[in-house]
Amino acid sequence: MPFARKDLLGLAGLEAAEITDLLDRAESHWGEAGSPGGSRPPARAVGLSAVNLFLEPSTRTRCSFELAEARLGMERLSIEGQRLSLEKGETIVDTGRVLAAMGINVLVVRHPEDGVPALLAEELPAVHVINAGDGANEHPTQGLLDLLTLRRLWGEITGRRVVMVGDVSHSRVVRSNYHGLTVLGARVTLCGPAHLLPAPGAYPEARLTDDLDAAIVDADGVMALRIQHERFSTGEAPPDPESYRRRYGLTVERVARLAEGVAVLHPGPINRGIEIDGEVADGLRSLVLRQVTAGVAVRMGVLSAMAG
Amino acid sequence: MPFARKDLLGLAGLEAAEITDLLDRAESHWGEAGSPGGSRPPARAVGLSAVNLFLEPSTRTRCSFELAEARLGMERLSIEGQRLSLEKGETIVDTGRVLAAMGINVLVVRHPEDGVPALLAEELPAVHVINAGDGANEHPTQGLLDLLTLRRLWGEITGRRVVMVGDVSHSRVVRSNYHGLTVLGARVTLCGPAHLLPAPGAYPEARLTDDLDAAIVDADGVMALRIQHERFSTGEAPPDPESYRRRYGLTVERVARLAEGVAVLHPGPINRGIEIDGEVADGLRSLVLRQVTAGVAVRMGVLSAMAG
Amino acid sequence: MPFARKDLLGLAGLEAAEITDLLDRAESHWGEAGSPGGSRPPARAVGLSAVNLFLEPSTRTRCSFELAEARLGMERLSIEGQRLSLEKGETIVDTGRVLAAMGINVLVVRHPEDGVPALLAEELPAVHVINAGDGANEHPTQGLLDLLTLRRLWGEITGRRVVMVGDVSHSRVVRSNYHGLTVLGARVTLCGPAHLLPAPGAYPEARLTDDLDAAIVDADGVMALRIQHERFSTGEAPPDPESYRRRYGLTVERVARLAEGVAVLHPGPINRGIEIDGEVADGLRSLVLRQVTAGVAVRMGVLSAMAG
Repeated sequence: MPFARKDLLGLAGLEAAEITDLLDRAESHWGEAGSPGGSRPPARAVGLSAVNLFLEPSTRTRCSFELAEARLGMERLSIEGQRLSLEKGETIVDTGRVLAAMGINVLVVRHPEDGVPALLAEELPAVHVINAGDGANEHPTQGLLDLLTLRRLWGEITGRRVVMVGDVSHSRVVRSNYHGLTVLGARVTLCGPAHLLPAPGAYPEARLTDDLDAAIVDADGVMALRIQHERFSTGEAPPDPESYRRRYGLTVERVARLAEGVAVLHPGPINRGIEIDGEVADGLRSLVLRQVTAGVAVRMGVLSAMAG
Repeated sequence: MPFARKDLLGLAGLEAAEITDLLDRAESHWGEAGSPGGSRPPARAVGLSAVNLFLEPSTRTRCSFELAEARLGMERLSIEGQRLSLEKGETIVDTGRVLAAMGINVLVVRHPEDGVPALLAEELPAVHVINAGDGANEHPTQGLLDLLTLRRLWGEITGRRVVMVGDVSHSRVVRSNYHGLTVLGARVTLCGPAHLLPAPGAYPEARLTDDLDAAIVDADGVMALRIQHERFSTGEAPPDPESYRRRYGLTVERVARLAEGVAVLHPGPINRGIEIDGEVADGLRSLVLRQVTAGVAVRMGVLSAMAG
Repeated sequence: MPFARKDLLGLAGLEAAEITDLLDRAESHWGEAGSPGGSRPPARAVGLSAVNLFLEPSTRTRCSFELAEARLGMERLSIEGQRLSLEKGETIVDTGRVLAAMGINVLVVRHPEDGVPALLAEELPAVHVINAGDGANEHPTQGLLDLLTLRRLWGEITGRRVVMVGDVSHSRVVRSNYHGLTVLGARVTLCGPAHLLPAPGAYPEARLTDDLDAAIVDADGVMALRIQHERFSTGEAPPDPESYRRRYGLTVERVARLAEGVAVLHPGPINRGIEIDGEVADGLRSLVLRQVTAGVAVRMGVLSAMAG
């Protein structure tokens, strides 16, 4: 079953075949996504016009979308937070309608509030909306790029065990990965300090634990999450870096105890020496940069699926 | 008489035939301006290099120009306010000369001071300057897009009656529309609180009034203006929103009293519930989104006229 | 000997033949660099992907690189200071590796600290790094554009005498020009207030002086430097503008005493009435705008050399 939805708002609710179709499309763009040096084939002329509307700061994700659009030969435009006429009192839906009236086909949206991409998708019947991260809800292209990275390593996702460790409760990366991994048949463990774990029932098929050393004993892959200071509301205290590192960091010592072949991932940007040691991020187990390459491939795949 | 000027600084002084030529050109780009969904024809290769120099915040107008340039296959570059080397002490004319020496052909300028585009047009003999809004002076592509929107609705502008209501004295949109509508044979009424009306003689062919309900009795179209808080100088008080809405807002009740077929316009961004009610902006009479589509078409028309 | 290095980090250490090769390449792009008006040939399709990473404000240099990239038909993306995920704690090397993993071929870097482009060049084996200005170290494309401007005027650089005057100690423009001019056989004089002159031995082949009137007696070209307030550390006082102008400014009176044909340059942006009088900057001797055109040509030359 090919992916044939108007929008990509999250991985929750997608069927395995749809996700597999997007991963297959992404795979077909791998050569364009990350091959440095030498010359590159001319951009394909996908006749779509995309606007990247980033109302939360992001360099990595915005650049990845822009490069994907450029390599597909799409018309592209980026709008970033501070300079938006939203400040003149316009609502986000009005902004979306205005962009639609300018004849755009794809709206890539990052927004600090949950649900804004879904709202736009509903209000803009002729525009494909891609969620590039909304609040603590979903970041589906991040989930897909992690799946692609792992599928390239393992061949198959089914039956694998993945541990995600860190600030689970604030993480949209976790939510997208959980849904994607689960529907493809992996088993997910979510690990972090008790006060950063999700409410019971939020992730019904995941194992929850605050004991990382126990969690990683039988893992095939371990993903460290970034401590996201900007998502802590007033009154909540982010964890102390040193004690956090000791209990939840992918330290050199801890990673040395992993079985051979177990992969380490991180969605970036990396806080070296906090949630992951620099030597681990740069080490042989690390898939961190392959995740980045997969990001461009996945975005090309999603965009080309929408181009039909 | 085709439009054959080097620059587009305002609609004041243009002849009816020149404006009609620009509208006809814009009309020929309508299909590229706003058709969402599906694929788009490859960009025409207009061999021009454009810089969009926006020294006042703007999302809508900048995006509209960028998309028009992209759809004409032009080289394009945008420079926005805060990051300009003007801050290092360079004058705006020096900035313009530097860009001209880089081989650009078109300079789209938005500037908080009246007359800056005209100054640049004079100092840069080999560059086409397009005024994208200067102070309280003119915003000619906004005027043209309103004319195009109305011409598509009415077939002819001649003999029609248009009311513009709001903060007339601070509005460059009013100035450009006044000149364009008047030279094409429409009759213009400018309406607003007495202290926001222009000096007598500033708009010699317009009727001025502070009574909106009387003004709209025989109107064919009514355009609400945005209250532009940023244009009030220190000491001037912007109007109280609620009492402003009651007397000058396009409220549901007031618009219900308009004759059938009377159109409602707004240059955007919209302050819903102040100068226009949300239901009116989204209603059947509203041309607000058609104005946006017309904006891309008009900018394509103006740029292609300059490409010769 | 053609320029065949992976990176362009500075002019120090380049051989004369390498610089000449880059200047010859730039010369071949002259027609595309600065010819305004009329239409432009379609961009050549150089299959490279470039990211311009500007962590210090710059309009002129960034635009010049962007236009050069556009005219070579390159994929291009710009990232500017404030919006960088560096703020989320990522190191500059991590940022570089992420961009490399996205398949970019060229990284143009401006950074407030000396040596950052060299660090990136070492850490990114598959990416061409171009230094667009690092701290008080080098700005090699500025040096090349000055050389190209002077070579077009003089035919040959060898044997010519060039005076650079101003805030020599904080100037990366001086350093790049010194190395380029010296290796091509020109004689360089560095002039400025004693406390803004470099340490003895820093520029072994240059003459150092605080007496501008004596320095320019036998000059073929005089380059004024911008007073760079932003480079003075706390505690250092930038010079008083009026007394600075009297002793070190290229004033109308001082320039009138230069021999016929002596050229005046300035890297811009210009502080009119401080380091150079407006009449001089706009006068017949001034090469200021030709330097700007040369900038686009030089960047096209360097990029096409890297495209191989």
